[in-house]
Amino acid sequence: MTWWPHFANPDTTYMNYRLLSRSLGMICLLFAVTMLFSLPWAHPALGWRAHLPATPHAFEWNGFRGLLFSSLLSLIIGGVLFWFGRGSSGQKLFRKEAMATVGLAWVLATVLGALPYVFSGARQADGALISWVDALFESQSGFSTTGATIFKNLEDPNLLPHCILFWRCSTHFLGGLGIVVLLVAILGQGAGGKAMMRAEITGPNKDSAHSRMQKTAGVFASIYIILNAVLALIYWFSGMSAFDALCHAFGTMATGGFSTYNASLGHFNSAWIDYITVVFMILAGTNFALLLFVSMGRPDRLFADVEWRVYIGIIAFVTMAVIGFGMWSDDFANLPSAIRFALFQVVSVLTTTGYGTADFDQWNNFGRGVLIVLMFVGGCAGSTGGGMKVIRHVLLAKILRLELELSYRPRVVRPLKIGDQILDDIDLRKHILVYFGLVGATFACCWLTLITIEPDAQWTRLSQESGEEGNLLDHKLLDCASAIAATLHNIGPGLGVVGPTANYADFAPWSKLLFVFLMMLGRLEMYSILVLFVPAFWRRI
Amino acid sequence: MTWWPHFANPDTTYMNYRLLSRSLGMICLLFAVTMLFSLPWAHPALGWRAHLPATPHAFEWNGFRGLLFSSLLSLIIGGVLFWFGRGSSGQKLFRKEAMATVGLAWVLATVLGALPYVFSGARQADGALISWVDALFESQSGFSTTGATIFKNLEDPNLLPHCILFWRCSTHFLGGLGIVVLLVAILGQGAGGKAMMRAEITGPNKDSAHSRMQKTAGVFASIYIILNAVLALIYWFSGMSAFDALCHAFGTMATGGFSTYNASLGHFNSAWIDYITVVFMILAGTNFALLLFVSMGRPDRLFADVEWRVYIGIIAFVTMAVIGFGMWSDDFANLPSAIRFALFQVVSVLTTTGYGTADFDQWNNFGRGVLIVLMFVGGCAGSTGGGMKVIRHVLLAKILRLELELSYRPRVVRPLKIGDQILDDIDLRKHILVYFGLVGATFACCWLTLITIEPDAQWTRLSQESGEEGNLLDHKLLDCASAIAATLHNIGPGLGVVGPTANYADFAPWSKLLFVFLMMLGRLEMYSILVLFVPAFWRRI
Repeated sequence: MTWWPHFANPDTTYMNYRLLSRSLGMICLLFAVTMLFSLPWAHPALGWRAHLPATPHAFEWNGFRGLLFSSLLSLIIGGVLFWFGRGSSGQKLFRKEAMATVGLAWVLATVLGALPYVFSGARQADGALISWVDALFESQSGFSTTGATIFKNLEDPNLLPHCILFWRCSTHFLGGLGIVVLLVAILGQGAGGKAMMRAEITGPNKDSAHSRMQKTAGVFASIYIILNAVLALIYWFSGMSAFDALCHAFGTMATGGFSTYNASLGHFNSAWIDYITVVFMILAGTNFALLLFVSMGRPDRLFADVEWRVYIGIIAFVTMAVIGFGMWSDDFANLPSAIRFALFQVVSVLTTTGYGTADFDQWNNFGRGVLIVLMFVGGCAGSTGGGMKVIRHVLLAKILRLELELSYRPRVVRPLKIGDQILDDIDLRKHILVYFGLVGATFACCWLTLITIEPDAQWTRLSQESGEEGNLLDHKLLDCASAIAATLHNIGPGLGVVGPTANYADFAPWSKLLFVFLMMLGRLEMYSILVLFVPAFWRRI
Repeated sequence: MTWWPHFANPDTTYMNYRLLSRSLGMICLLFAVTMLFSLPWAHPALGWRAHLPATPHAFEWNGFRGLLFSSLLSLIIGGVLFWFGRGSSGQKLFRKEAMATVGLAWVLATVLGALPYVFSGARQADGALISWVDALFESQSGFSTTGATIFKNLEDPNLLPHCILFWRCSTHFLGGLGIVVLLVAILGQGAGGKAMMRAEITGPNKDSAHSRMQKTAGVFASIYIILNAVLALIYWFSGMSAFDALCHAFGTMATGGFSTYNASLGHFNSAWIDYITVVFMILAGTNFALLLFVSMGRPDRLFADVEWRVYIGIIAFVTMAVIGFGMWSDDFANLPSAIRFALFQVVSVLTTTGYGTADFDQWNNFGRGVLIVLMFVGGCAGSTGGGMKVIRHVLLAKILRLELELSYRPRVVRPLKIGDQILDDIDLRKHILVYFGLVGATFACCWLTLITIEPDAQWTRLSQESGEEGNLLDHKLLDCASAIAATLHNIGPGLGVVGPTANYADFAPWSKLLFVFLMMLGRLEMYSILVLFVPAFWRRI
C-alpha cells in the first residue's frame, strides 16, 4: 500500500499542507468508526450498573442519535479534509508535517470527541444542557487520560445516557493507546510514523531504530489491549456489571480516572477491588517494554531497571510516610484501612490515574502536600502514565550532582550513568533540563493566568452556597495551583474546589479552555503543542 | 604584603585546612572590629527614634556590654583559628579552599552575628529572652539581606536596645556588600580572591579578567557606600533621626528590609519617603556596573542594557496590572494611593527588599499571586538584590525558544544573543538550566520538609489565639510555600502567617533552622553552601 505517506528526510523546512490535511482526514475516519462501538450500550440489556438503585430505563434514543450523528459528522469532516489533501497520496511525510499532524490530531480529536456530549443532549446536574466548552473539557480530559470531569452527577441516565458514558470511557482507552500510535500500528507502513511516535510516546529516551518503531507500536498496543481485557474480566467476576467492568478497566489501564459513579471507585467500597486496581495501576505506570520482558518469562528485568526500582521505592516509601502521619493525625479508622486507602491514593496520584477511594483533601497537611509533590513525578517512561516521568527525575538528580562536583572540580569529566548503562550524553542532559524548564515556566505562567482570568466573585458565591465555615476565596491560590498541576500532569483531582470529591464544573469557561490546553500540553509532553504557536513553524518554506 | 594567600591553579583537589582556618580567622577579626561601630548608639543622644512616643531611656549598658563581649569573643575565636592556621602564611589559595572559605565564612558570620542578640539579653515581645535559634535566624536574615524577622516588637528599647537594633541593620550593610567581597577589597592583593568573588557576586556572568576583579570589588564597594551615605542624608533631611536614617538606608541599599519599627517603612506614612525609597530600591537592584557608567556621565548605557530594560519593564507592567486589579477590587482608597502603594510593593518584592507600606496579603488574589511570582524573579545580576536575577529569566526564555525551534528544525544552529552581544554558549546554557533545576528541586524538597517538620498543633493554637474566622491550618501549605520562596530568594515577607504585618516568630525551632539554611543558599546562589554537604569535597586529596 502506498497511500500512507513515507517518512523521509526529517530536516526539511517545507510544510506540505495537502499531506497534513490528508493525515488529519484519516483521524476523522478513525473516529467515525470508533464512535460506533459505543452504540450498543444504549440498549438497557448492556448499559446498566449493578450498584445503582434500579432506575428502569428504556433504549437511549437520545444518546444513540447523538453518537450516530457525531459519527456521520466526523465522516463528513474527514471527507472534506481528504478532498483538501487530494493529490498528496504517495508523497513523503517530513518531520514538520509529522509534528503538525500530532498536534492538530489532538486538537481535532478534542473537537470530535466533544460531539457526542453535545448532540446527545447530555445535561448537568441541574438539568441544563452542557456547553460546548464543557464538552471540549470532558473530551480532552478523556483523551489525555486526565480524568478530570465537569459532570456533577454521573448516575442519572436521563442526564447522561449509558452509551455516552461509555464513549466517555472509550476516550480514555483511545488516549492511553495514543491516538496516533494506534493509527500507525493499524494503518502505518513501518516507515510512516517514526516522528509521530516520538511525539506521542512518553519519556525522554525515544530513539529506537527505525525498523523497530512499527514493532514497538504493535507490542505496545497488544499488551495494552490484553491488560484491558484481563482487568475487565476480573472486575466482572468481582461483581461489576459488564458496563462498569469495561469502563473502569479503561479508566485504570489508561491511568485516566473516569468512573461511572459520583464517588469514583470508592462507590464499590470493596477492599478487593481497591487492591486489584492498585496492582493494575502500577502495571499501567510501568514501562511497557518491561512488561513485554515479564510476559516472556523474564520478571528479573523489572528489578534490573533503575526507573522501575525508583518508581516502586517511591510508592513504598511515600505510602509508609502517609500511613505514619495519617495514623498520628487520626485520618484513618485503623491500620488496615490506613494501608488500603493510603496505598491506593499514593498509587492513584503517582501513576496519574486520579481515582479516589478516600477524600485525601481532608488528610493532614503532610498527606496533602506529599500528594501535590507526587503529581510532579508521574509514572515510568513508555507507560500510559502522565506526569514528568520517574526517569526524568532520576536523571535530573544525577545531573545536578555532577554539576555540583563540577563547581569545585571544573575539569572533571564523568558520564551520565543509569545502572551500568552509560548514556551518551550532552544532548540528553540538555533535553532533561529544558523539559524541567518548560514545565516550570508553563506552571508559573498558567497559574498566574488562571488566578487572573478566574473571577473571584464566583468563589465568593460558591462559599456562600456551600455553607461551610471559611471563605473558599482564601484557598483560591492553592486550589488553582493544584488544578494546574492536576491537569498539566494529567492526574485529575487536586485540592479544595477540585479535590477528590469535587469537580471542575464551577470554573469559568475561559479557565476550562486553559485546562484543555494544559491537558493537551501534558499528554504530548509540550513540544508538539507549543510549536503550533510558533509562526515560523507554519511557513511553507 | 605576602600574608594574604595567592590564588593559583584552580583545579587541584587538595584541601588545605590550615589555610582555610587562617582565612576564617580573618573573618572573625573583621567582625570584632565592625561590632564596635554599633557601640555609640547605646548613648541616648544618638540612639533615638523621632517617631516613637518619647520613651526616656538611659545609656544602654546591656546592649553595650553585649556588643563588647561579642566583639571580644570574635577576637578570641579568630585567634584560635589563626593559631590552627599557623605556618600557612604565604601559601596559595586554591579553588576548593576559596569555596570552602566562602561557605564557612557565611556560617561563621551567622554565628558571630548572633552573639550580640544573645549577650545583650534581647527579649521577645512577651519579655522572654530570645533563643539561640532566633538569634541565628535574625543574624542570617541580616547578612543574607532577607529582612525576615523573629522580633514581634522592635519599638521598646527595654526589649531591644538601640545599639543592638543598629547592629541588626549593620548586618544588612555587611551582607549587601558581601562579607568576603569586603575582605578582598580591603585586604586582598588582587590575585587573592577571584574564586571567592565569583562565589559571592550574584548573577550568571562572572567571568571577568583576573586583573579586573580587585578593581571591580573596589568600585562595587565605593558605589555602595556612597549610595548608602546619600540615602541616609536624604532620609535625615526628610525628618528621620540619624539613627533611623542610617538603619533604613542600610535596609534599602542592601535590598534587605529590616526596619526599626513594627510597621516597617509604613510607620512614617509619608509619600515622599516611599517614593525616595522606591528610587533607591530600584538603584540597589540595578547592576552596579551600569551605575558606574551612569556616574561617569553615560546614562544611555542603562537603556542599552537588555536586563535593565526588562527589569524596568517588569516593574512598570506589573505595577499597572496591580493598580488595575486593585482598583477593580477596591483594595485602594483612590488612584494616587493605588500608585504609591502598588509601585512600592512591586519594587520592594522584585528587588527582594521586603519593606512594607501596605498589607498586600489583604489584596485581591491577582495582586497576591503576582507578588509570589515576582519573588522568583529578583533584581539584576551584579546588584545587591537577591532572587534568581532578571538576566537568568531572560536567558531561560531565549533558551526555551531556541529549543522549541530545534524540535522541528533539529539541525539549526543559532547563537544565544543578548542585544547585539553573542554569548558563547554551551556552558552558559547549561548553567542557566541547572540553576533553575537547583532552585526548583530545593523549593520542592524544602517545602515538603517544612510542612512535615512544622507541627500542625502550633497553627491550630495560633488560629484560636488570633480569634479570626477560619483556620490558619487550612493555609499552611500556601503560607509555607510563600515562606520558602521569601527566604530562599531573600525577600522577607510572604503570605498569611509570614505576611507583611506578621513575622517568623511562631515557627518551630527546626523550621527556623531550615530558613537559615535557605537564606544562606539563596544569598550565595546555591553552590558554595551545597558543596559543604558533599563528603568528597572535604577529602584532603
